[in-house]
Amino acid sequence: MPFDPKAGQFYRMPIFFGPTPGPRQWPEGRTFDFTKTPHMKMLGVRMLTNADQLKAMLPERFELRGPPVVTVEANYMTEIGWLAGRGYNLCDVKFEVTFHGKAGPVHGTLVLVRWENLCDPILSGREELGHNKLYCEIPEPRVIDGRHSARMSWLETPFLDINIWDLAAPTGMSGPPADPEHQGMLSYKYIPKTGDWGEADVEYVTLSPHRPMRENITIERFELGQGSFQFWKSSWEDLPTLYHIVNAFAELENHGFQGAHLVQTVGGSSIAETYRVD
Amino acid sequence: MPFDPKAGQFYRMPIFFGPTPGPRQWPEGRTFDFTKTPHMKMLGVRMLTNADQLKAMLPERFELRGPPVVTVEANYMTEIGWLAGRGYNLCDVKFEVTFHGKAGPVHGTLVLVRWENLCDPILSGREELGHNKLYCEIPEPRVIDGRHSARMSWLETPFLDINIWDLAAPTGMSGPPADPEHQGMLSYKYIPKTGDWGEADVEYVTLSPHRPMRENITIERFELGQGSFQFWKSSWEDLPTLYHIVNAFAELENHGFQGAHLVQTVGGSSIAETYRVD
Amino acid sequence: MPFDPKAGQFYRMPIFFGPTPGPRQWPEGRTFDFTKTPHMKMLGVRMLTNADQLKAMLPERFELRGPPVVTVEANYMTEIGWLAGRGYNLCDVKFEVTFHGKAGPVHGTLVLVRWENLCDPILSGREELGHNKLYCEIPEPRVIDGRHSARMSWLETPFLDINIWDLAAPTGMSGPPADPEHQGMLSYKYIPKTGDWGEADVEYVTLSPHRPMRENITIERFELGQGSFQFWKSSWEDLPTLYHIVNAFAELENHGFQGAHLVQTVGGSSIAETYRVD
Amino acid sequence: MPFDPKAGQFYRMPIFFGPTPGPRQWPEGRTFDFTKTPHMKMLGVRMLTNADQLKAMLPERFELRGPPVVTVEANYMTEIGWLAGRGYNLCDVKFEVTFHGKAGPVHGTLVLVRWENLCDPILSGREELGHNKLYCEIPEPRVIDGRHSARMSWLETPFLDINIWDLAAPTGMSGPPADPEHQGMLSYKYIPKTGDWGEADVEYVTLSPHRPMRENITIERFELGQGSFQFWKSSWEDLPTLYHIVNAFAELENHGFQGAHLVQTVGGSSIAETYRVD
Repeated sequence: MPFDPKAGQFYRMPIFFGPTPGPRQWPEGRTFDFTKTPHMKMLGVRMLTNADQLKAMLPERFELRGPPVVTVEANYMTEIGWLAGRGYNLCDVKFEVTFHGKAGPVHGTLVLVRWENLCDPILSGREELGHNKLYCEIPEPRVIDGRHSARMSWLETPFLDINIWDLAAPTGMSGPPADPEHQGMLSYKYIPKTGDWGEADVEYVTLSPHRPMRENITIERFELGQGSFQFWKSSWEDLPTLYHIVNAFAELENHGFQGAHLVQTVGGSSIAETYRVD
Repeated sequence: MPFDPKAGQFYRMPIFFGPTPGPRQWPEGRTFDFTKTPHMKMLGVRMLTNADQLKAMLPERFELRGPPVVTVEANYMTEIGWLAGRGYNLCDVKFEVTFHGKAGPVHGTLVLVRWENLCDPILSGREELGHNKLYCEIPEPRVIDGRHSARMSWLETPFLDINIWDLAAPTGMSGPPADPEHQGMLSYKYIPKTGDWGEADVEYVTLSPHRPMRENITIERFELGQGSFQFWKSSWEDLPTLYHIVNAFAELENHGFQGAHLVQTVGGSSIAETYRVD
Repeated sequence: MPFDPKAGQFYRMPIFFGPTPGPRQWPEGRTFDFTKTPHMKMLGVRMLTNADQLKAMLPERFELRGPPVVTVEANYMTEIGWLAGRGYNLCDVKFEVTFHGKAGPVHGTLVLVRWENLCDPILSGREELGHNKLYCEIPEPRVIDGRHSARMSWLETPFLDINIWDLAAPTGMSGPPADPEHQGMLSYKYIPKTGDWGEADVEYVTLSPHRPMRENITIERFELGQGSFQFWKSSWEDLPTLYHIVNAFAELENHGFQGAHLVQTVGGSSIAETYRVD
Repeated sequence: MPFDPKAGQFYRMPIFFGPTPGPRQWPEGRTFDFTKTPHMKMLGVRMLTNADQLKAMLPERFELRGPPVVTVEANYMTEIGWLAGRGYNLCDVKFEVTFHGKAGPVHGTLVLVRWENLCDPILSGREELGHNKLYCEIPEPRVIDGRHSARMSWLETPFLDINIWDLAAPTGMSGPPADPEHQGMLSYKYIPKTGDWGEADVEYVTLSPHRPMRENITIERFELGQGSFQFWKSSWEDLPTLYHIVNAFAELENHGFQGAHLVQTVGGSSIAETYRVD
């Protein structure tokens, strides 16, 4: 039976075996309660930087929104349904932007890189959603004397340290403040055209809207405090697939760290609501 | 400076940092002598199976070529230039086909799956070349009493064992026989359309031609012998992203193993010559 | 300055560098609050077996105490002080015994094997405490549909599965019942005599008393339910350093699983109170 | 059947399961041809340092022999019989000494630390032979432009880099020069006494003689060249079990690197000939 894709089903390479199981497609009859899965623990730090440096990374029609603050956030996930209860970790570098789409402006978070420590969600995230995912090692954070320390590395070469401390539950807040105009996570999907190097098979912006995920999530722990992060300046020999990214982040001017957060949540979404924004 | 791709350069997600280093693009001025890099050690086993089972995996315009023999081959690579001298391993499942392209038939090897134990070449291979790569663990083979044993696993769950033994250098042969009509490795590139699930952004066949690689490669060891492989029948819980593939292979009828090979080579190619076949 | 050990300090190979940092010795001035560190999550299953099989494992002067119930328990630890806030995991196989010491009987738990996934505490535990530790891989448990699944493996070869389910907090109990006569964890310390194979440099029983640890520990979660475990029968080729142990456990008769527990705690001890029992 | 050790057999914790399989004891009837196993690839660098710094590490009755040259050598082993054909890697830091034993002086190499990337041989080596083994990660070396680079790390924290280059087979030499007075590898076996911290259960010097191993080994590749190594100065937080050792090495004065070697061999020994030297 030759490959015969059906509307509403998910397919990824290799297509020789029919519909592809993954974050948005499970065995026949299998469902998950997204108010109870997954569990997430997020460690984030914000840094004020030079607006021109952030703008230099933006493709056309993207605009920096608000102060030039870059956030680095590690997220440790467990009890993930589509992985049959396993977990994996990720680390985002991101800032706030407006994308001037044909149907009007879209305010959201541009995730420049989402590092993950498992290849399977990297493939489905890049190809299905346009999420700008790459691989690195993300071991469990160290916790001592109230200080949480996370380190990212690639094949035993560390390139990013995150530290947060002096954490406490803020009075009168049970979670991060909501921004009613903020629509979600913006990504830039790009697939090269085989053989015509420099040209694209696919090139468009995607939006993963906040709404379905936010409705499912319960915040179990929300603390604010101090924090810092540091990218290690690296050579091609150290990080042959990441040095250009790590060095771009290492060169961001530090105009002051803006605080840190620790958030633990239960619940999520398959993010199948992600769509193309022209 | 917004994203501004140049012809002849390679770009992959995330595109915010300019040209992307990878297997076919290195730092300014850096080159590799592809007659001396990489080093490869391949362990392969061939099995005669039911032709109808192989045909059932073929997309339109593909035809089984010759007897229904599937080859499972593990390849251990070291001294890879674009990884600054690191190595990684891969494992192919493949058989011989003819693709009936618009410009005529193309005879080649259809690689149904290429498992690799490093995410970076999986991303570049899928997106640039259409190679049907997935992740698994591929530790070094065990060697005892002249028997080489390779095992593939995913997050500590084994799913494929390869064993080869009774190996000896064949008289009068210094390498595998050449097939003048065989053009290279065929793959099926497919990228889903974000939000329109079941539809494709990209869907075409690619050919990675043999010629440039073969001209560079020196065979250092070539031995033939006996061998077997076994896929472990698996549940969704065991292998939530691979069970449908592993079980399809586990169900292939065994009409007799057809021998094994051990080949060690030096040299290779960036495979930038890969092109789309309509 | 030649090696000059001081009373009260801890030394292990290599001794060329002075006192050895480890679970019971930290940098000058560094202390930990053992009521707040480490965090532990334990998954345990009990199985009734054939008393003769357990007795056959006992050295002289050890006696089976109570019904022949063997417990398999995985323990996932984080925020460990002496590892500067890192964690590691362990998995015990154990049953209740009486050791007839010269000063009278000692009732305790004989830990036949404590597998750990980090070499450093294995070395200090074996050599300082006589704990019968060995290495294996202990990834985080999978959790789906209220079922927790743990798997132990060695170099990608799985050998033990633990499953627990139907968990609920028991009414009227906030923790496991205390046994006033139970004194702690019993181990059998044995170090071979170099060159005189079959003879021992060290051979005695040790007791790690419960008391200091129990006083420090706060139980955060205590649930009881159903469970099972299974050891995989293995060959020397599969597990060349563990097959004799794994097969001994695989051969234990299953006279019925006796329930499972999930316990989460905060607090602990350095176990420096461990002593030799003659 | 209680524990009943037999002369000539090997036992290690846990002793509840009879004789312990390991590097010097295999299943009934199983033997290995030590002229064909294992395969080893060694990368070594020598550095002249301050004699007083080396002397400061020496226990009583040890004396520095010859110039104060410390050697750092990584060794990548495959096809190891007792691991059923698997491999593992090690990294030594060592220098030449004379031990003044009761029966006269013994000239040998004092291995201050042997790091290994597998726990099983660490346990048997420490307890049976007194070898001063510790755990670290030892990935395959990188090789590019004729330069071999090895890096040691512990839980993603690098602490030692070795680089060798300009390698060539020396004329008129097929292997390292033999020193007729050199007897082998010296170690300092030390096991603490449980509960009497600072006192020892075991404390003596061992010698692993060269002879049996050297008779079995065939040198397949022998090249000399340039090299360097560097220990990274580390904090307790970075390397809570290794910082005191790594920093002692980082503080060694560099009075000039003395060249590097790359040696590939086949063959070995169980080193069961190791004995105590009083």
